[in-house]
Amino acid sequence: MQIYLFYKKALLSGQIGSPYKLPSIRQLAQHLNISRNPIEAAYAQLIAEGYIEGKLKSGYYALELELVQPFYTDEPDKTSRLENQETASSQDNQSLIQFSYDHTAIEYFPLAKWKTCTMKTLQLHSYNLLDYGDRKGEIQLRVLIAEYVRQNRGVICDPEQVIVTAGTQQAASLLGLLLRQEHSTIGVEQAMHPGVLQVLNHHLNPIPFSIELDGIHVDELYQHPTVRAVYVTPSHQFPYGMTMSAGKRLKLLQWAKQANGVVIEDDYDSDFLYEGRPVPALQGLDPNGCVVYLGTFSKALAPALRLSYMILPISLMTRFERELPYYDQPVSRLTQKTMELFMEQGNLDKHVRKMRKVYRHKREVLLNAIASCMGDHVELSGTTSGLHIIVQVRSDRTSEELVNLAAQGGVQVHSIMDYTVGNLSAHKQSFHRGRAQLLLGFGGLSIDQITEGVSRLAQAWRL
Amino acid sequence: MQIYLFYKKALLSGQIGSPYKLPSIRQLAQHLNISRNPIEAAYAQLIAEGYIEGKLKSGYYALELELVQPFYTDEPDKTSRLENQETASSQDNQSLIQFSYDHTAIEYFPLAKWKTCTMKTLQLHSYNLLDYGDRKGEIQLRVLIAEYVRQNRGVICDPEQVIVTAGTQQAASLLGLLLRQEHSTIGVEQAMHPGVLQVLNHHLNPIPFSIELDGIHVDELYQHPTVRAVYVTPSHQFPYGMTMSAGKRLKLLQWAKQANGVVIEDDYDSDFLYEGRPVPALQGLDPNGCVVYLGTFSKALAPALRLSYMILPISLMTRFERELPYYDQPVSRLTQKTMELFMEQGNLDKHVRKMRKVYRHKREVLLNAIASCMGDHVELSGTTSGLHIIVQVRSDRTSEELVNLAAQGGVQVHSIMDYTVGNLSAHKQSFHRGRAQLLLGFGGLSIDQITEGVSRLAQAWRL
Repeated sequence: MQIYLFYKKALLSGQIGSPYKLPSIRQLAQHLNISRNPIEAAYAQLIAEGYIEGKLKSGYYALELELVQPFYTDEPDKTSRLENQETASSQDNQSLIQFSYDHTAIEYFPLAKWKTCTMKTLQLHSYNLLDYGDRKGEIQLRVLIAEYVRQNRGVICDPEQVIVTAGTQQAASLLGLLLRQEHSTIGVEQAMHPGVLQVLNHHLNPIPFSIELDGIHVDELYQHPTVRAVYVTPSHQFPYGMTMSAGKRLKLLQWAKQANGVVIEDDYDSDFLYEGRPVPALQGLDPNGCVVYLGTFSKALAPALRLSYMILPISLMTRFERELPYYDQPVSRLTQKTMELFMEQGNLDKHVRKMRKVYRHKREVLLNAIASCMGDHVELSGTTSGLHIIVQVRSDRTSEELVNLAAQGGVQVHSIMDYTVGNLSAHKQSFHRGRAQLLLGFGGLSIDQITEGVSRLAQAWRL
Repeated sequence: MQIYLFYKKALLSGQIGSPYKLPSIRQLAQHLNISRNPIEAAYAQLIAEGYIEGKLKSGYYALELELVQPFYTDEPDKTSRLENQETASSQDNQSLIQFSYDHTAIEYFPLAKWKTCTMKTLQLHSYNLLDYGDRKGEIQLRVLIAEYVRQNRGVICDPEQVIVTAGTQQAASLLGLLLRQEHSTIGVEQAMHPGVLQVLNHHLNPIPFSIELDGIHVDELYQHPTVRAVYVTPSHQFPYGMTMSAGKRLKLLQWAKQANGVVIEDDYDSDFLYEGRPVPALQGLDPNGCVVYLGTFSKALAPALRLSYMILPISLMTRFERELPYYDQPVSRLTQKTMELFMEQGNLDKHVRKMRKVYRHKREVLLNAIASCMGDHVELSGTTSGLHIIVQVRSDRTSEELVNLAAQGGVQVHSIMDYTVGNLSAHKQSFHRGRAQLLLGFGGLSIDQITEGVSRLAQAWRL
């Protein structure tokens, strides 16, 4: 961080400028007697922000500052976010701390192993990998995915039921296309991920259903006989965070069987469980082929890879083969083969085990900080798994007011209201009525950011 | 090829078996005094077919044959196709020769440079590249794409109008979503790419329009005032192959202006022009912001990368920002950054120049072979650019009969009828009536395969 700030200041103040050549990463690491990682990160950030450039086989050079950033300036892109994160971790009290649900601890990404697998892939397969591939995804990767979800989530499927997708949204889009012939509506939980909702809505009319303390209100489903497909997040409801109970799971599958319906199970962050015993996926409990299972490597590994998957029951796979004969696989074969090698070597299992510890620790820090700074003024839920929790604040303020106060105090949080589907008032009545509930994602924050963030929140909310 | 067959036979006959260790690529190259490329290709093919496996830092080993291929057997995947190609190139007269329009000369892919750029990317950017990126694609890549199409195709746009997509189908899907608010129909050419048609059809009702010798019949568009969006392939109509004339281009833009309409210009293989002067893209001729430009790196580089792009007029980009706020970019950031570096170093321009020569040569061989084997019995069209031509056979046989005769003679060709939209009889009347027309793609075939394929066709058709 200091390296980044040092060069940024020197460049902005004109102390150094084009064509100044920066020391190589290796030189600087030796000079400062530190590892190369922080220097690499600092240089990468300076490149991303347009201060310096890396020239192949030559080194890093300062850029003319008048010439750079023609397109960065008015765009709220990720650069600024990364910068915020880094600055915050350096204890700069002015910077924003974001409790975002979709940030992950990318600094733990097994980059060296990924590099090795990438190189090995390019070496082993070379030209054979360059043409159009299997439209469902590379067969060997699908074999490995089927095995991974069997071992970790109790999902039972043949690799031929697996389709590799470029993210969950793309899976949802494909599902919308497959379902829309027989379904005009899709039941959804009363609060859900806005991106998935948007995509489902392209093909189907989403009907929100209440959520109880143990998951979606199945009795309500029986009251809407026209709804025969439903999208749920049983492992860690998004955003509320509860795990669907075993009884509710059986009840939902019972409904699906009777309605001849389809249950879409989005298992988006099931890799990270902190309390209790793992609850196997719905898919594995279902003997009737009613469940579609959605999984992603965005949380377990990195969002930037755009690698997710969908496991279809035979009936829907038959429909896929028949109705989408020209569907093109959107994930690069090189990426798929790299992932294949990465999994074959056991790296995914190892990484997930490691990240479970990392996130368990972050969660403990978060829960402890909340307990000591906020005490009885808040009530927590959704804490047993995943990368976010829900804080319910005992206060007369609305969630909007709390979000604004937090922002003034240098913290970004989201109200659960932001994820509500359809009619707000119906929602308010049905669940946790009247009290402001806020979503706190902790996956991408450092330990210091978590404690500082909670302390700022307590101050901002005067708890 | 001989290496591949040698080991395959030895493995199948039981001469060698698990745990036999194969010689390393380097050893074998030295031993046989040949380059490493053919050995790498042979080993990769043996791995793909499940005969051997590569173990990291150890070498290549024969696999237990009882245990392998549980999923390969009944699946018509790409492995068999590659095998066909390889076998054919080794002059095995029994193997099928496929004149496919979507095969490219992947053996010319600049693999070494791509490897270097991949490694450099992983090294330069490391952790900064692992989170969600810009949803339109990496800004620097979009800057380079905008510059590439400006220089090569006369497209005029700001990088902010560019969206990176995972293939043309994904672009078409996004376009369908953007257009369907204001359009219920989309005009298409009477014959077109079936994959793009399928995707457009998810959101819009495609209405086919006749094609004249210089492109789509614009007067017909005026006769259908409800159609205000049209999809065309002006550089090299797919499948007919004609280039839209300058006059027709202006007429089409005039229509778009009057109708307040949208023209989607799919410039799928415009990099390869063999005769005449390059005709700039429609997009650059249009002062009114009516044209959407679609481009892809599948033909110029490799389909497996899944890298394409779409350039929207400002009005549609505003709609994108407003109506698809949660849209996730589907292309891996690592792939995007690698492409960025690849382009920055001038590799794309260099590669396209090289491939233009390669394809020009293949095309000449094809045209000469047809001239000498088929003479006056055929008439050619669509030969001035792209990776396929159209052969019109002077014969009483239907195109179905010709396709079947070709198949019996060991050649796969497609009838242009396979790409017809909607009513067949209307189509027959409107263009090249009565005569069988076949599409011959040559991009993925070797010189030997092309001459052998044409000679087989002449024999099969008794020309």
